[in-house]
Formats: sequence, structure tokens, C-alpha cells
Amino acid sequence: MTEELLYHVDGDLVAADEATVNVRDRGFLYGDAAFETMRAYGGEVFEWDAHMDRLAETCDVLGLNHGLSAGGLRQRVDETLAANELREAYVRLSITRGVQPGKLTPDTEVDPTVVVIVSELPRGGQGSQPVWDGPATLQTVKTKRVPDASIPARAKTHNYLNGILARLELRVTGADEAMMVDADGHVTEGATSNLFFVRDNALRTPSLDGPVLPGITRRVVLELAREEGIPVEEGQYTPAEIRSADEVFLTNSTWELRPVETVDGLSIGDEESEGSTGTAAGPVTTLLSRLFDLRVEADSYE
Amino acid sequence: MTEELLYHVDGDLVAADEATVNVRDRGFLYGDAAFETMRAYGGEVFEWDAHMDRLAETCDVLGLNHGLSAGGLRQRVDETLAANELREAYVRLSITRGVQPGKLTPDTEVDPTVVVIVSELPRGGQGSQPVWDGPATLQTVKTKRVPDASIPARAKTHNYLNGILARLELRVTGADEAMMVDADGHVTEGATSNLFFVRDNALRTPSLDGPVLPGITRRVVLELAREEGIPVEEGQYTPAEIRSADEVFLTNSTWELRPVETVDGLSIGDEESEGSTGTAAGPVTTLLSRLFDLRVEADSYE
Repeated sequence: MTEELLYHVDGDLVAADEATVNVRDRGFLYGDAAFETMRAYGGEVFEWDAHMDRLAETCDVLGLNHGLSAGGLRQRVDETLAANELREAYVRLSITRGVQPGKLTPDTEVDPTVVVIVSELPRGGQGSQPVWDGPATLQTVKTKRVPDASIPARAKTHNYLNGILARLELRVTGADEAMMVDADGHVTEGATSNLFFVRDNALRTPSLDGPVLPGITRRVVLELAREEGIPVEEGQYTPAEIRSADEVFLTNSTWELRPVETVDGLSIGDEESEGSTGTAAGPVTTLLSRLFDLRVEADSYE
Repeated sequence: MTEELLYHVDGDLVAADEATVNVRDRGFLYGDAAFETMRAYGGEVFEWDAHMDRLAETCDVLGLNHGLSAGGLRQRVDETLAANELREAYVRLSITRGVQPGKLTPDTEVDPTVVVIVSELPRGGQGSQPVWDGPATLQTVKTKRVPDASIPARAKTHNYLNGILARLELRVTGADEAMMVDADGHVTEGATSNLFFVRDNALRTPSLDGPVLPGITRRVVLELAREEGIPVEEGQYTPAEIRSADEVFLTNSTWELRPVETVDGLSIGDEESEGSTGTAAGPVTTLLSRLFDLRVEADSYE
């Protein structure tokens, strides 16, 4: 299927199999690049402005002055969606520091490489099918989240080995997502998702004070919960608190809200269903998923 | 000049400007790749076996079973050197996990991408000119070295943002290399170099128990010192100990041994020369540099 797709590379639409970057591009040599993973509903990228704000934050951390406007980037994304006749899509926008003389220290003068990758997704909004196969199984891993003092978590970059090492640990258990803790043993996030849980009817999620990506879906879910009057807490939590939660779910732009069925092999929620394969999400997760679908409809089709 | 060079990409020699990888290559998307930086003297890669051992260690950490033999890799490197008629060269060999279905979790089945990048260097060995312009200025930075618990330092990968962030801090001072400490404040290494210092006539370097790359040049220098009867200590040190050292130098495969002139703006060594621009390396550094040159001659031209 990818052979039929067109990607956007450095200003041109090119066949996916011919979409390349030079081997001296710093995005390849060092992972020296910022990116955003987004989702288009009905041809419109959801939360575009928020993604552009975070991209700017990443580029600020990297000292990457790419000189491109959000409008110019949007044009490339829109062109890519239109060229592929995609309305419901996964969109990955990357900006690298391009090719520079052969030194690790970046030049201030940047000729950036801009890449837009897309693929088709199921329709979002009310009555939609999730992109995931079923509720997630979550597993605590030994690989610790990279501390902010080493690489700030608010920067979304092409340096993803930390998450890859975490996911490699799941080969043993077959779990879907890794629950990563920081050096102090506090839960941070999954390899590609933010984590939420419900206890005593309050929605809780690791605070951004720790090494946690400020996910766009995370922020939307917190907004929806507050609008609905659900008590919300951003704090520091241990894996044990997640394991004993009433509900657990993960978020990212592609998954939206994905319920968690088991954590470290233990069933979440109703103790009577422990050991069973009950797949129903809890009431708060279900409510927030529906509110999220409504938000998608409101933003995309109005 | 690079336009005239030929690189080796996936089994083929291609013009440097046309040497590319697909934008879905995991080396580009995630920095999911192992690499080695090597130096060829007289057409022979120095310490080839040691580089292959470390590459294997990196691939082991990454769970990357590329299925390529050291002999096959050597053939690609040799072909690249021969095609460019290079005898004195920088050589960068990268192996990525290639293109896989669009998920962060790596597939066990790998169709690796192999890239060899080369460029010309001055002749090495006795009487050679160093590749660096002069002794280095070293500056302690705030960016902490990524802990082994997050990404093991013994893995040499395309995830280099930690070092890039460290180097970005040097824009203020104009220093050549960043002195990175770990979470406990112990000195680890530079962004692209190992660090040595001399105190009380003993050669000292941060131990590999911390997040320190097991540099090939680092190991050779330790061997040379032990053979010469110089006392050697691998330990834990603070930036203050480096600043007050009698001699400081940096090592990597390209630089070989590079003397350090100042640390955090303070002159190293002879206190009387403080504030001067004395560029002479100390006696232990000079001796080890000469022994290194002899070792290069012995390995390359015998």
C-alpha cells in the first residue's frame, strides 16, 4: 500500500518508496530532528495549533531555527493529504537540521529537511472504530525514562531508542505498551503514550514536572474531564497505584483513548473479573472516549 | 569535495550527494541504528576487531540481529576506501534496523540498512599533523549524560541529541568540547570524546561503571600507559579534580589524543602559565601521543 502513497520531502511530493534523505542529514546521523504525530479527521488535522506550539517548543530545546512558518508547514501537510485523497489519516511531520559540515556541534545556519509521511486510518468521531485491536496490556519495564536533565521530555525528537529499549522488554510478556518509571521509581508514561488512571472517581495522570511528554491528546482529555466536572489530579504515582486503579487508559494522537485491561498481568478494575478477559472499558474511560469523539466531530465537521 | 566522494549504501557505491535512506528507515525515524567511527591509516582501519566487537555489543543492546559478518562489513569499508583512493581516512559505518511496518516496537526480522561514509584525513603515525586545530578548551555543561538505566552508554547509536544539547551550551563560551557529568555530579566524558587527566604522575579516567562510552582509543591509551609503567586509575571524579589536574587530554578515533588547554576557563597545569595561551601538551600527554603514533605505525605499515 505504501508504494501507492505520496510523501512530502523538502517541498516535493514523491512516491513513498522514493522518499529519501541524504545519509549525511543530521536527522539520520544523530536523530537531530523534531517531529509531530498528528491525526486528520475529515481532511483536517486535529489540534493543529497545539501541535505547532509543541513543535516550536521542541525546536527551541534543540536550538533549531528552521525559519518555516506554521502556515507553510500546514500547506505541505494539506498538499500531502490532498495528493493521497486522504481524509482520515495518520500524519507525521518531521523537521531535521539538514546536512551540515561533519561536526556534532550544530551550525546556527540551517537548511532544514522537512518530511511529511501519511497513512490511512479508520474514520474518527462518533460511532467510529478504534485503530487499536483491543484494550492494551501494560507492563512495567526496567528501562528508565530519560531524565529531563539529559534530554527534556517536552522535546519530541527522532531520538527514540529509550522507548524502543522499553518496548524490546515486552518481547517476553507480549504486552502492548511499556510502563516506564523515572530514576525515583515514579510512573512517567508509555513508550508512545501518556497514561491515565481512575481511583476514587478522580482522573489522575503523571504530572509534567517529571519526564513526561506533554501529549496533545493528554491535554484534550484533561480539558474534557474538567469541563465535565470530573475531579482531576496531576501527580506522582508508583506502579503499585496503577496496578490497583479502578480504570487505566492510554492516550496518543493515533490511539485517542485506549483502555488498559491488565497491568503487570493483573486485571484492572472489577476484582471479580480478575483473570477473565473482560474487555469493557470502565465508566470514566467510556465517558471520556465519547466526549473525545464529540470534540473531534465539533472540530472537524462544523 | 563531498560531491566527488563515493559512499557505500546497502551494498552499492553511490555518489555522496545521491547517498540516501528511505524516510521510513528506522535509522531516520528513531535513530534506531548502531554505528562506529573509525580511522584508516595507510589504507587499513585501525583496531578493526575492537570496533567490530563494540558494534556487536551495540547491536546486542538494541536487539538488532543484522545477520552481517564482520568480514562482509570489512569488504564494504575496504571497497569504499579503494573506490575513493583513500588511505588516510575517517570512516563511519552505520547499521540501521531498516524499514519495518509502522510501529515503534521492532520486528525481529530485520532487513538492515548499511551505510559507509568516508572523508580524507591527514596522514597518521610518526611526524603526522593532528586533525584538530589546537589544544581543546573544555567546559562543564548542565546537560547530564543519559544514565545507563535509560540507554546503556556502551551502545554507540544514532541517538546523539544528549551530546548535541551539551555542545549547544558551548555556544556561549565558544569552548571546543563539553565536559558532561552524570546525575551524581561525576565526570563522564565529552560529547564525542573520552577524558583523561594526570595527577601525581598517574593517568586517570572515568571508570566504565558510569555512563561512559568504552572508547577504542581510550582502551589503546590505557594499554600503552600500562605497558609504559605509568600508574593508571579508572575511578569517579568531580569537575573540580579535572580543573586542578596537571594535564588533561581527550581521545577519540579521529582526534587520537587531543591536549586540553583550559577547563571551565582555567588553564591546566603549570600555574605560572595561567591566563597565557601556552599550547604545549604536558609530558605524560606528549609521551602517550608518541606511543600512540608508534602503535599506529606498527599496526598499519608492518
